[in-house]
Amino acid sequence: MNKVNIDKFLSNKAKRMKASEIRELLKLTEKPDVISFAGGLPAPEVFPVREFEEAARYLLPRHGEVMLQYSTTEGFTPLREFLAGYMQKYNVPAEVENIQITTGSQQALDLVGKVFIDEGDYIITSKPTYLGALSAWTPFKPKYLTVNMDDDGMIVEEIEEHLKNHKVKFIYVLPNFHNPAGVTISEERRKKIVELADKYDTLIIEDDPYGELRFEGKYLVPLITLMKERVIYLSTFSKTLAPGTRIGWITAPKDILTKITQAKQGADLHTSTLDQWLVYDLCSRGILREHVKKIRALYKRRRDLMLKSLEDYMPKHPEIKWTRPQGGLFLWVSLPQKFNTYELLDKAVSKKVAFVPGAAFYPGRSEGFNTLRLNFSNAKEDDIVEGIRRLAELVKDELNK
Amino acid sequence: MNKVNIDKFLSNKAKRMKASEIRELLKLTEKPDVISFAGGLPAPEVFPVREFEEAARYLLPRHGEVMLQYSTTEGFTPLREFLAGYMQKYNVPAEVENIQITTGSQQALDLVGKVFIDEGDYIITSKPTYLGALSAWTPFKPKYLTVNMDDDGMIVEEIEEHLKNHKVKFIYVLPNFHNPAGVTISEERRKKIVELADKYDTLIIEDDPYGELRFEGKYLVPLITLMKERVIYLSTFSKTLAPGTRIGWITAPKDILTKITQAKQGADLHTSTLDQWLVYDLCSRGILREHVKKIRALYKRRRDLMLKSLEDYMPKHPEIKWTRPQGGLFLWVSLPQKFNTYELLDKAVSKKVAFVPGAAFYPGRSEGFNTLRLNFSNAKEDDIVEGIRRLAELVKDELNK
Repeated sequence: MNKVNIDKFLSNKAKRMKASEIRELLKLTEKPDVISFAGGLPAPEVFPVREFEEAARYLLPRHGEVMLQYSTTEGFTPLREFLAGYMQKYNVPAEVENIQITTGSQQALDLVGKVFIDEGDYIITSKPTYLGALSAWTPFKPKYLTVNMDDDGMIVEEIEEHLKNHKVKFIYVLPNFHNPAGVTISEERRKKIVELADKYDTLIIEDDPYGELRFEGKYLVPLITLMKERVIYLSTFSKTLAPGTRIGWITAPKDILTKITQAKQGADLHTSTLDQWLVYDLCSRGILREHVKKIRALYKRRRDLMLKSLEDYMPKHPEIKWTRPQGGLFLWVSLPQKFNTYELLDKAVSKKVAFVPGAAFYPGRSEGFNTLRLNFSNAKEDDIVEGIRRLAELVKDELNK
Repeated sequence: MNKVNIDKFLSNKAKRMKASEIRELLKLTEKPDVISFAGGLPAPEVFPVREFEEAARYLLPRHGEVMLQYSTTEGFTPLREFLAGYMQKYNVPAEVENIQITTGSQQALDLVGKVFIDEGDYIITSKPTYLGALSAWTPFKPKYLTVNMDDDGMIVEEIEEHLKNHKVKFIYVLPNFHNPAGVTISEERRKKIVELADKYDTLIIEDDPYGELRFEGKYLVPLITLMKERVIYLSTFSKTLAPGTRIGWITAPKDILTKITQAKQGADLHTSTLDQWLVYDLCSRGILREHVKKIRALYKRRRDLMLKSLEDYMPKHPEIKWTRPQGGLFLWVSLPQKFNTYELLDKAVSKKVAFVPGAAFYPGRSEGFNTLRLNFSNAKEDDIVEGIRRLAELVKDELNK
């Protein structure tokens, strides 16, 4: 047999793929005695396990032949109806035919990439931005135009500057409790962003996995409500119920949704029928609503404790700052410019505490070396205090060098 | 607000996508009083519903926090271990690190497309071929080089002719009970195909969803066993347990699998943790093995009845022929050249019987108009006899015109 050189068979897309840096980091930090603020995991101790078990026990004997069979690409109709109603409650204009069920929100990003991105297309995104979007889109070789953020989210003047200079396929927006930055786009900026999309004739991808997890402050209307014709809205049950079932959805204008459904046919035919039935059951029995209340309270407690611990332990320094997210799972820490948080992570892991270095979230991976992301949803209360204490010690040592 | 012209935002990939012709046809034929041989569905009346329910009831209270949480992209390790062992039993050389779990076999095809196909790449495929592969790959714009089949599968001389003239990325092979054609590649040809792949330095995609569903005849070794370095093997639990859970897998050389795993990270992060646990439970309790025996017997009975009904009712004519598959779900009917099976389908639906016109399975959709595919797994026994009788009447009417 002749030797096989795999590299020469790989597509250009494959050459642009790489293992997720975060997933590799997580492997290092997953030892049981490490206090990890690195992952983006919900708290499993409050998963509605019993309710899923009840749903399976009740539904399978009655509807098993349908729940285990192939189903439609668009998704389980009662679940799509529920989601249309659910979104209408938030003034999002949606009917059943505007809803596509996806295999988690990650698949929604992949389908968006397939349907919209050709090589060289311009996309506007915040920096830092969600890493999963980059791993879905980078294989298709778009050009990222990046925009800075402040406490009110993306700087709209920078968005307009890009729109003036380039024909842009879409603006990628994480409206609520940004991953990784923890910030929320203000009402005024939301209005401004959709106006810009209209003025310069572009689309908006609104990625909103955390919108339901608001602990305090005023509910802000999603961008899709402001201009449904130009917004493709993505969300998921991963943060509100459980991520293991991989149920997400896309809300979009009907003509766009038709293309997305065609892309999904080629991608995985349809999402697990069984999982869609189970998730629908929890939604229709009101368990989703109750569960969201419960995790909002839990995550708020953990966020408060993490903020207090940072306050208590971090050295006072004008360049040491962190965001105060009104919801979600993450906060974002900036350290003085001389810090390299990859190096800090090495030291942190030896002290049994972990986070994600911020540079991982920048499209070019060439800035943000003084930043880091902390997850507060997945750590127990005692660990939050102790983990932040250890981290603060390391920062102090480094400052004093 | 300005009017939005969606077309100008679509990628070239999206422009090449279209709604699956079969899925559209199925909608027409899904009325309850139509006897449909059109779908490719397993028989739901024998799904192991009780066993899935038992698994959920037993496992969720014990492992719910893990079953509902995010999990690794590669897949649930015990399931991958089971599959490695399962494939070794068939002399397929596989270890855990050669197994990637996919969201159904359709996702495996999508990942193959992403990892290997650039615009203009040559792919060799049989004609007719599996439609799901075309819908996964066509957006990436490969050039299909097609090869005819006889009762022993793909004509190897035609494969070699293509390999001589073109640098080919891979040969797409459906080794057992071909969908749609129902034929199986002979042992001699399997050997010849891997030799050709080696001689001309190309890869093989071996798509084997039906291999376990052999009713009779000798088991034939898969191509991956003959040359594991050049073969990417795809299979699924959709036909052996139940398709609703969307659990498939890829077996491939480790360096190829690494790229496939990266592609899957961007595609949907991982397959449903819950569904992987449930399917693993059925596998490890021996239910898969028992269930496969049961459906083999059932599908054999239905195939026999369909063959006998064709024998009994179809007009005798030298150009009216059908395949006699030794397993799987489908058989393939050829009618005299003057037939157009799209037109025949219109008449059939008005007589409350349905099939898929064969031209749908040809890459160019410009030949095979005198052919059609019949599914025998999903129809009840009485319906098989009556449905074939009605179909034969229509063929007779058309012949006598």
